[in-house]
Amino acid sequence: MHTVQTGNSMYALARQEISLPKIVSSPEELKQLSLEQLTLLAHEIRQEIIQNLNKTGGHLASNLGIVEITLGMHYVFDSPADKFLWDVGHQSYVHKMLTGRREQFDTLRQYKGLSGFINPLESEHDAFLAGHSSTSVSLAVGMALARDHLKQNHKVIAVIGDGGLTGGMALEAINHLGHLRRNVLIILNDNEMSISENVGGFSQYMRRIKETFFYRDIKEKIDLIEDLLDDVPLTPAVRKLIEGVKKETKERFDTPGIVFEKLGINYSGPIDGHNVEAVVNALSKVKDKTTPQILHVVTQKGKGYAPAEEDSIKFHGVSAFSLEPPLSEKVEPIQPPVPKAKTYSDIFSQALIDLAPIEPHMVAITPATAEGSGLVKFGKVYPERFFDVAICEQHAVTMAAGMAKAGLKPVVSIYSTFLQRAMDQVIHDVAILNLPVIFGIDRGGLVEDGETHQGVFDIAFLRTIPNFTVLAPKNAQELRNMLFTALKEAQGPVAIRFPRDKAIEADGCGAFEPIPSTKWEFLSNENLTDKYFNSNQKKASQDNIVLLAHGAMVDTALRALPMINKKGLEPLVINARSAKPLDHEMLMRIFNLPECKIVTLEEGFVSGGFGSAILEWVHRKEFCQLSEPNYLKIPRPHISCLGISDHFVEHGARDILLKDNGLSADSVADFVINLAQMQHMLT
Amino acid sequence: MHTVQTGNSMYALARQEISLPKIVSSPEELKQLSLEQLTLLAHEIRQEIIQNLNKTGGHLASNLGIVEITLGMHYVFDSPADKFLWDVGHQSYVHKMLTGRREQFDTLRQYKGLSGFINPLESEHDAFLAGHSSTSVSLAVGMALARDHLKQNHKVIAVIGDGGLTGGMALEAINHLGHLRRNVLIILNDNEMSISENVGGFSQYMRRIKETFFYRDIKEKIDLIEDLLDDVPLTPAVRKLIEGVKKETKERFDTPGIVFEKLGINYSGPIDGHNVEAVVNALSKVKDKTTPQILHVVTQKGKGYAPAEEDSIKFHGVSAFSLEPPLSEKVEPIQPPVPKAKTYSDIFSQALIDLAPIEPHMVAITPATAEGSGLVKFGKVYPERFFDVAICEQHAVTMAAGMAKAGLKPVVSIYSTFLQRAMDQVIHDVAILNLPVIFGIDRGGLVEDGETHQGVFDIAFLRTIPNFTVLAPKNAQELRNMLFTALKEAQGPVAIRFPRDKAIEADGCGAFEPIPSTKWEFLSNENLTDKYFNSNQKKASQDNIVLLAHGAMVDTALRALPMINKKGLEPLVINARSAKPLDHEMLMRIFNLPECKIVTLEEGFVSGGFGSAILEWVHRKEFCQLSEPNYLKIPRPHISCLGISDHFVEHGARDILLKDNGLSADSVADFVINLAQMQHMLT
Repeated sequence: MHTVQTGNSMYALARQEISLPKIVSSPEELKQLSLEQLTLLAHEIRQEIIQNLNKTGGHLASNLGIVEITLGMHYVFDSPADKFLWDVGHQSYVHKMLTGRREQFDTLRQYKGLSGFINPLESEHDAFLAGHSSTSVSLAVGMALARDHLKQNHKVIAVIGDGGLTGGMALEAINHLGHLRRNVLIILNDNEMSISENVGGFSQYMRRIKETFFYRDIKEKIDLIEDLLDDVPLTPAVRKLIEGVKKETKERFDTPGIVFEKLGINYSGPIDGHNVEAVVNALSKVKDKTTPQILHVVTQKGKGYAPAEEDSIKFHGVSAFSLEPPLSEKVEPIQPPVPKAKTYSDIFSQALIDLAPIEPHMVAITPATAEGSGLVKFGKVYPERFFDVAICEQHAVTMAAGMAKAGLKPVVSIYSTFLQRAMDQVIHDVAILNLPVIFGIDRGGLVEDGETHQGVFDIAFLRTIPNFTVLAPKNAQELRNMLFTALKEAQGPVAIRFPRDKAIEADGCGAFEPIPSTKWEFLSNENLTDKYFNSNQKKASQDNIVLLAHGAMVDTALRALPMINKKGLEPLVINARSAKPLDHEMLMRIFNLPECKIVTLEEGFVSGGFGSAILEWVHRKEFCQLSEPNYLKIPRPHISCLGISDHFVEHGARDILLKDNGLSADSVADFVINLAQMQHMLT
Repeated sequence: MHTVQTGNSMYALARQEISLPKIVSSPEELKQLSLEQLTLLAHEIRQEIIQNLNKTGGHLASNLGIVEITLGMHYVFDSPADKFLWDVGHQSYVHKMLTGRREQFDTLRQYKGLSGFINPLESEHDAFLAGHSSTSVSLAVGMALARDHLKQNHKVIAVIGDGGLTGGMALEAINHLGHLRRNVLIILNDNEMSISENVGGFSQYMRRIKETFFYRDIKEKIDLIEDLLDDVPLTPAVRKLIEGVKKETKERFDTPGIVFEKLGINYSGPIDGHNVEAVVNALSKVKDKTTPQILHVVTQKGKGYAPAEEDSIKFHGVSAFSLEPPLSEKVEPIQPPVPKAKTYSDIFSQALIDLAPIEPHMVAITPATAEGSGLVKFGKVYPERFFDVAICEQHAVTMAAGMAKAGLKPVVSIYSTFLQRAMDQVIHDVAILNLPVIFGIDRGGLVEDGETHQGVFDIAFLRTIPNFTVLAPKNAQELRNMLFTALKEAQGPVAIRFPRDKAIEADGCGAFEPIPSTKWEFLSNENLTDKYFNSNQKKASQDNIVLLAHGAMVDTALRALPMINKKGLEPLVINARSAKPLDHEMLMRIFNLPECKIVTLEEGFVSGGFGSAILEWVHRKEFCQLSEPNYLKIPRPHISCLGISDHFVEHGARDILLKDNGLSADSVADFVINLAQMQHMLT
């Protein structure tokens, strides 16, 4: 018999000596428990999550909030026959622990360990994959239609948070479901604390549902009328009429959740999401309904934090534990108390604060990533110039376009992976009219979160769009200067991309300076540059190697350089800070070097990326035509494009992933050395 | 004095001899009119639109539906100071006529003429650009925030249809507006006829608003109670209570539009959108409100069609005039009654119908483009396997992913330009799990609608995504075979792209045959192929030209061939039907041809496109490494990439646009001939 320590908050249960038969790690085992035991399990799991996340990091608060819902789901429904669709997927830790992955839970988010999100490749209990928000209802609709078409009989359950519900595609799906009237259960995990202040009318409405002010008000008044009429001689018909009005008022007009009801989804709730019994009862009630249902469950993010609050020293450094809004949803592993290095997000958001006084028309927009992007402080200092639109990437971008057209200077801070949600808006609303919207593209490149979050498409997508300027800084100060220059000079859209990592030379930041962002920069010393371009001192041709590095890869190239130099090779390193436009003058100089080997470096997909742009430049149509005779004299060059090859990159620490993908300094050095050797062999 | 012929339906006004002072073509002139004259003007404009569109083609029905709304807006508000944001933009013809463009109205949609959409480059009265749906509220929010930030004082008015409102980003924007509570007026142009049967819960709800069944029901009952209680001696307090309940029921609980009210937008309406006076009054009432307002206007698409109905012969060939659902929103210019050539859309949708019996798990999904994509017939034959999700590209794609995961074979029929709305869903929900969702990408390439609708990004975007197969057929039968093969064999996502044009060899369609879609095909005769690859008969090297044509460009290349042959040149033409994966074997053969000149041809952006993929293949990392020694022996090739250069392409007939962009058969022939000559000069 496995008996857990119940802790202070569980004194009632402890007194009853309720215990758990063993470590519960499957739905079958779970279903054997009593409701009291479920409550105990909830506590046990909560403690396990807290302890484990101290080691692995991860989404603490949302998982503590969803413990009872998850237990209830596995108690009442039958996964994997019934399909559980977890929106965003990062609140699936409890689900993972209960579906055979409890023992591996300490490998969460580690390279080759459990994913921080759901993925059917990891477990049959993960009905789908998710990392982005607001997809679960669409998936549920699709799976319900498939089930009905295939004449199957299982349940489809979408779990979505109040945050996810602000995403347009979730609303599209609810709208469609209300029309289709298929058997889908939506569990709305509603946590007010998860919402920043800019939550939208919908969330405000849900808050009002919880207050149920209107309903109580009208119901009480009708009751009062009835009471007052008690002594009055009324015909049975009149009595019946009054009853009817009451009933209709209750049922039709002020059901909490009238918005959902009006859209064709049956609403029940709100219920207390931390009372296992209430959750189990509510789920049991809707289980056998055949029409679309929404169950409104009110939870508290970070439920069970008390120990953390009581023992603030122990939890020092795990910022989520403070629960101060905006809630730090994600925690980092507890590490020795070293001063935290400034990230590019920090640099970018500080630059916005620094620029605000001199750019009075600048405003900042974020789609629910204020904390991750470091914009919380900006929002506090300039609340009237800060717009967190919730999980609405599309709206964020088009709203910014409207602002730019109307004379503001909007800066959209957005993760590379989430920008994918707004590609049409970037094209249709920003680029066609060539509007000066500035995109601060955070998490451009590889991130530890895995497949769903890799920021690997942005360079390829954005450089294909006419009118766009696509930039990436080599270090902190260049990021500041790019933003400054774009705000001063941009005549059209500008994307400034930076990785999720500590900023290079973060401590060297100074005053803003305008820079020619679309002109590239020699990073080698003058002697070397001379060697390359001064024919009198021309080096042996096989050593003519030029590294064209974009963004974060500049630093990588510079770190690779000493290893390359050791082999007697002296490549030129160029800070190719604009992927679009290319620096034609610089390219002309480079491509006129005889027998030059060019290596392009980018932290993104090679397909269609920066290197690809260089290839297109060389092979441009004009190159083949008489109208531009200069190009004809350029020797056909040897170019290698380094970047991420055509596959989705898993989760794990960024430096591991970079190495895996041949983008660590070591790998780059190896490649360049091999390249030079190979050329020696050929010549 | 200019007196219009009022027509039969206007007999009342005609009898009153109301007349218009002159041709009204500016808001100033409009404001001088009486309400009666406005009604007359509405009739006049309606006739002008009908007559004009017989020549130019265009969106007839939606513009006839919005005549009075537009007149009312210009009567009550002051454009361009007040900002009119027309969703989709194709219902802006009346607005164009009233803002200085009435005389040019016969150039509508013609090359270098008026755009069929709105564009600030065309008029200061076009506050923004639009071609895609559901953007107007986001733009309005952005512009209202800018106005308030800049301490300006004008009004911002978003016009959106009930169709546009199904788009997720419109719901995001309404949600945000409800939170912000800024001064924005949304005019909801609600036309039931514009909606196909799959309209979503929201539209159903709006239909119920119009019926106002609930409200009337409860109100009448309370009235009845009151009446019945008239004779009963009640205290004033009870009477007051009853009054209070009535008032609250009316005001709070059953305001038509409670959904909007609950989301924080004040609702008024519904009003009759074809009664100018009602429109003007309603707009005047909300004009000076400072909170967000939604005015619900009910209109009839195609209002004023009576003449067309009475004289069906005259309007023969203009399918919109039938008004049969699904409504043909767009009309083509009246042309001589020639048999209509089958388009690729026709071929694709017929293939779906033909395949349905042998592929019982195949379902078809469209985001509100059932008619344009030719899927109406499929929907009629297989209603239970057809899903028109309304304007919800994101939901459409993710729903399809859910279906595929659950065992169906979903085919998403979507325009290239609208696929941009769902790029994240394509990546996150389809590609990562490598799900066999088939995308029938209609309108891939240049279309007459202009900048907003050009299908030019899809090749570049899709080929960057891991796991994707990106195909384009050379003719009708190949399209059928590709779809057939994908349904039979696909292990992951497949995109099949075709242009908006008549299908090549549409009459030659026969039985389905499996084809190796990712293997390319020699289109030249065997003798020529022999000449190229049989070294004994090797041609002069300068004549080694290979045209790698993708999709619709195959036909272009074949049409260019005779012109090229005339110059004594005999290029090989290859049907490069897959842009991803590339046919490595074929490429190895081609690139081993000595001194070969390769020309890639695609109807899409060169940036990141098919040609770019060829360049990447040649310069792939492995090419430079010892691990793949075969590649080292390949001579560095001469490649030119033909496609659309880095700019947004205007509106006009497809053949004109193709020629403008160097993609007509003539232009391709010229390019190839010049290329050969240039090589002669160099050698």
